[in-house]
Amino acid sequence: MIGTLAAVLTTAAWLPQLLRAWRERSAGDLSWLYLGTMTAGLASWLVYGTSRHDAALLGANAVSLVLVLALSAVKVVTDRRRT
Amino acid sequence: MIGTLAAVLTTAAWLPQLLRAWRERSAGDLSWLYLGTMTAGLASWLVYGTSRHDAALLGANAVSLVLVLALSAVKVVTDRRRT
Repeated sequence: MIGTLAAVLTTAAWLPQLLRAWRERSAGDLSWLYLGTMTAGLASWLVYGTSRHDAALLGANAVSLVLVLALSAVKVVTDRRRT
Repeated sequence: MIGTLAAVLTTAAWLPQLLRAWRERSAGDLSWLYLGTMTAGLASWLVYGTSRHDAALLGANAVSLVLVLALSAVKVVTDRRRT
């Protein structure tokens, strides 16, 4: 129960960050090393969830990974526009 | 093994983001709703890790929580300076 709440919160958190970056057309304060390491980490969680047949782990990290990749895409586009 | 790697990566990712915000004195692109939801989520993972007596879960999320709180503190200070 608290584990499910935790998974939902740490996954849902990416949504307002993605929306903010999109609305403001600005993600310059985000570190590429942060987004890259987080992407590698979430991908590892996915592999781990698959090997453990853990649907909750799989689902939460799949959604997080999609949101982080979308955030990275917004950063690519908006960083380019500013230079 | 892959689970440990995943935990290390998603925890370590916060470090470059914290360092960048500190060095640039800028965290305006970070959403409060993101940092707040992430803090609540990591705190929930801590409670879950405690109830499960899972040292890896506890350690990874305790470090992440400290880094996110430090990042939030940098944001409070640098956002104020800009207005």
